[in-house]
Amino acid sequence: MVDQLSNVSETFARFVAEAQARELPAEVRHEAKRSLLNFFASALGGCRDQAIEIAAGVLAGFAGKGEAAVIGRSGRTDALTAAFLNAASGNVLDFDDTHVPTVIHPTAPVAPALLALAALRHVSGTDLLHAFVLGVEMECRLGNVVSPGHYRRGWHITSTCGVFGAAAAAGKLLGLDAVRMKWALGNASAHSSGLIETLGYMSKSSGVGNSARNGLLAALLAQSGFAGPDRPLEGPRGFLAVMGGQDCDARRLVRGLGDSWEILHNTYKPYPCGVVLNPVIDGVLELRERYGIKPDEVRNVVVTGHPLLGERTNRPAPASGREAQVSAQHGVAAALLRGVAGIAEFSDAAVADPTMTALRAKVRVEDDPAMALGTAKVTLELDDGVQRTVQVAHGRGSLEHPLTDAELERKLATLAAHGCPDLDVGPLVDAVWSIEHFTDVQEVVRRAVPDAVR
Amino acid sequence: MVDQLSNVSETFARFVAEAQARELPAEVRHEAKRSLLNFFASALGGCRDQAIEIAAGVLAGFAGKGEAAVIGRSGRTDALTAAFLNAASGNVLDFDDTHVPTVIHPTAPVAPALLALAALRHVSGTDLLHAFVLGVEMECRLGNVVSPGHYRRGWHITSTCGVFGAAAAAGKLLGLDAVRMKWALGNASAHSSGLIETLGYMSKSSGVGNSARNGLLAALLAQSGFAGPDRPLEGPRGFLAVMGGQDCDARRLVRGLGDSWEILHNTYKPYPCGVVLNPVIDGVLELRERYGIKPDEVRNVVVTGHPLLGERTNRPAPASGREAQVSAQHGVAAALLRGVAGIAEFSDAAVADPTMTALRAKVRVEDDPAMALGTAKVTLELDDGVQRTVQVAHGRGSLEHPLTDAELERKLATLAAHGCPDLDVGPLVDAVWSIEHFTDVQEVVRRAVPDAVR
Repeated sequence: MVDQLSNVSETFARFVAEAQARELPAEVRHEAKRSLLNFFASALGGCRDQAIEIAAGVLAGFAGKGEAAVIGRSGRTDALTAAFLNAASGNVLDFDDTHVPTVIHPTAPVAPALLALAALRHVSGTDLLHAFVLGVEMECRLGNVVSPGHYRRGWHITSTCGVFGAAAAAGKLLGLDAVRMKWALGNASAHSSGLIETLGYMSKSSGVGNSARNGLLAALLAQSGFAGPDRPLEGPRGFLAVMGGQDCDARRLVRGLGDSWEILHNTYKPYPCGVVLNPVIDGVLELRERYGIKPDEVRNVVVTGHPLLGERTNRPAPASGREAQVSAQHGVAAALLRGVAGIAEFSDAAVADPTMTALRAKVRVEDDPAMALGTAKVTLELDDGVQRTVQVAHGRGSLEHPLTDAELERKLATLAAHGCPDLDVGPLVDAVWSIEHFTDVQEVVRRAVPDAVR
Repeated sequence: MVDQLSNVSETFARFVAEAQARELPAEVRHEAKRSLLNFFASALGGCRDQAIEIAAGVLAGFAGKGEAAVIGRSGRTDALTAAFLNAASGNVLDFDDTHVPTVIHPTAPVAPALLALAALRHVSGTDLLHAFVLGVEMECRLGNVVSPGHYRRGWHITSTCGVFGAAAAAGKLLGLDAVRMKWALGNASAHSSGLIETLGYMSKSSGVGNSARNGLLAALLAQSGFAGPDRPLEGPRGFLAVMGGQDCDARRLVRGLGDSWEILHNTYKPYPCGVVLNPVIDGVLELRERYGIKPDEVRNVVVTGHPLLGERTNRPAPASGREAQVSAQHGVAAALLRGVAGIAEFSDAAVADPTMTALRAKVRVEDDPAMALGTAKVTLELDDGVQRTVQVAHGRGSLEHPLTDAELERKLATLAAHGCPDLDVGPLVDAVWSIEHFTDVQEVVRRAVPDAVR
């Protein structure tokens, strides 16, 4: 036991270094493509966000040779800067993926490090997909070990664990041996950072951006001989001891490595808001469509759920789009009024819309401790006294009710229309589904930037 | 009380934003120059270390316009990369300064961020000195608040607090108002990282490098409107709550701001080894000189000190230069054999020297719980039976027995001879002492690089 405990960094590093792409089960490869599709969707949607515009502007002053593309944007930049910007873009709208056990958003730190490397050398789609799965495995297993205490104490787990995922994934593409892979993890450990206090602010995006950038740098440094500690994760003053808390079981990091795959626990959001609102919005949209309900005939709405639903989302009067993302009243009003719940419905403008305000005032949230978290009951009472009720057992986008491939494609189209309207998304979608057939991933990335810069 | 607790980030940000250079006491300005001189010394000594060579090589592939100099090295690079490399160089030999209450090495993260900014715009020596003192105040006060638990739990406090110091200092040079200064601290909070596990490995240098780089970036982003949280330090999931521990008194951060100056608690090492060995080496050198003792007439040596001295340095057979840095036996042997204790005496080659090995075998460390930490007694017994004893109350380089200005100048000359032998150090030393007379700090930095690249 002690032996295993004392070398989990090495064991993991060796696993990543020696893993073979052909060992990946088909369902794992497919889920990886779904994650990448969702990532391109989120990054295309976020690539013109104000935080990204500012960061891109500042970093341009220091950027090197323009080898790497930034998703949805014109111009090229150096690979480290591209990794930063693509990770920040992919996460800025809070519309990216969620690894259920840890609430890590796994793709934002890892995929950008790999796409950036692919600008520096020929990388095949098969190798990229494999390295991506391994990077996700690294960050999510690390997240499993430190959960739930790590996030609860205030760590932004996507950034703190993501930098290790990016390092492992980039190290794999670089062909690092086990020793250098461990150094890459050690170099990453020097940069593991990210505080929950920054959520809701632009600062968060620079944390996520740097997790990809610094993970890539950690691997590049290791490749050149930049040596790290022997036990970056499990050492007495390493990541687990310092940032994980005392109750961590380091052995979980390596138990059953290669037999199970964390990416199979990844999920994708249907709406750009808190995931607990998914079943609420599902219910409203379902009633609206099934009964052809018009918003102006609704007298009141009752949302019933586990007490945590109310605790987190009972906000009758959100002041901003960001606050509306965690308002049940706003989610109901938006779905009822517009029949969709997309980025436009969670904008500051939508929140200020008087019709929306009037509708929010009709929504009440009630607790039912007997209901499971993740379910919701929605009851609409119409002006004629008729009541329409639906209970949603699992919201769309949950593990039990995942978005379909077609829904992910539509999400990408919708988000691209928001952030990069000039893009013809068809070729990008086709490329992601068939990424193993690409001998150079650059061909895929090119389909994610506007015409002018291909 | 609650009020004060709830706005220390804002209070500190306002203090930095509104501070005036003319308010700095003369002794503070002088200590700041001593810190800068010691920093140039350390960076010139470290600029060709293997860790720096590798990092410089890797980063060159991604670096932007060559506006900023790297101390002791040829060529220029972008300002963010220069901040990284100069911070790493200044700290890599563990020969830089130490803020006694916290063991922060304060100058390595802060000065490089400012020197890099000075490559982008005209910065006067007066303004640089002022911003430097404010950055040191930020990081060291933050360190005071979280000490000693933070370091003990495994945080490399130079990096974790240094990024805030770099952000505050850079923000001052950029002329940020109080709101943007607070954003700079918030952006820095997303990048606060660094683990003790990395000490003794190259990974540590990338942590220190990034603390300067990311602090500078945090300020540049804030200048452009990249917004951070309202309470990055004292918020419920901010730096103090997450990384500081529960016993932190946030009010200490701002108590008496402007009335006391942390830089006055800064110290400079005379020898490139653990500071607890300073009085030991002092004692050996003093006996050697006073009595004209030759190494081959020494029968044995007894070093007596507080039990912690033995706990940390009783290492009769160090295997490497790095281990020799915390070996009392090696420190005594080196001082006795060579009459100096510089970088060469703590190299792998010196450790392997058979004469050194033989001398180490004659050294014994004894505990005396009655002795204060920081003092040491050294007794040499010679072949003729004569004993020579000295007790050193305060080692050279302590607050009580600081290096003189002349000693700092000699340290710079010695370290430059090691890392950048072509440099004529006289003009650099003169420029640091008279830095307020420079209207453009670039003129000072130019004196810290070899002729070819000025």
